Amino acid sequence: MAPPFQRHIFVCTNRRPDGHPKGCCATKGAEEVRAAFKAELEKRGIKGQMRANAAGCLDTCAFGVSVVVYPEGVWYGGVKVEDVPAIVEEHLIGGKPVERLFMPLMKKAGS
Amino acid sequence: MAPPFQRHIFVCTNRRPDGHPKGCCATKGAEEVRAAFKAELEKRGIKGQMRANAAGCLDTCAFGVSVVVYPEGVWYGGVKVEDVPAIVEEHLIGGKPVERLFMPLMKKAGS
Repeated sequence: MAPPFQRHIFVCTNRRPDGHPKGCCATKGAEEVRAAFKAELEKRGIKGQMRANAAGCLDTCAFGVSVVVYPEGVWYGGVKVEDVPAIVEEHLIGGKPVERLFMPLMKKAGS
Repeated sequence: MAPPFQRHIFVCTNRRPDGHPKGCCATKGAEEVRAAFKAELEKRGIKGQMRANAAGCLDTCAFGVSVVVYPEGVWYGGVKVEDVPAIVEEHLIGGKPVERLFMPLMKKAGS
């Protein structure tokens, strides 16, 4: 695998101390979501063109596990392991972002 | 600060165990580079539009501290604290990526 990537997926895997008022993506399954992206990219044979990257806090903690896909700049919120195949199939491969999983800020931005 | 961001800067701050053959960005000053980006964005009053994010391994360890800027997908390698003002001034504000700091892969890709 070598950059630049056709698509670069950043999954917030930030972990805050227990009891922190903001919570964090790590306790909501972020590592599992990232692992699911990696596995799905590998299964589809596109691991060479795309990368599922860990990221620090993306500043969107309120929305659950946060994922941003570049270069499009599409933000997904509250992502669960079971959402990953749809994002990979419809967006990363098919080129059509999965609107039902958008963060509210995407709708506001009209993207 | 709220996404989407006008520019999103990812700095690899990955830390590997001492003695790992690949080395890592963390021991080459990656946290200091990220802190310098954050400080510079704040100083310029553009912290609301851009974010200097921590990232896990960007898979470009060989090039020293690795930074990728989206949505452009510009990759910088071997970034040092003293390079940060030029990247912020010329690229993030001025819109002209700093070619002398590009990773070799950027030159190869003809970007």
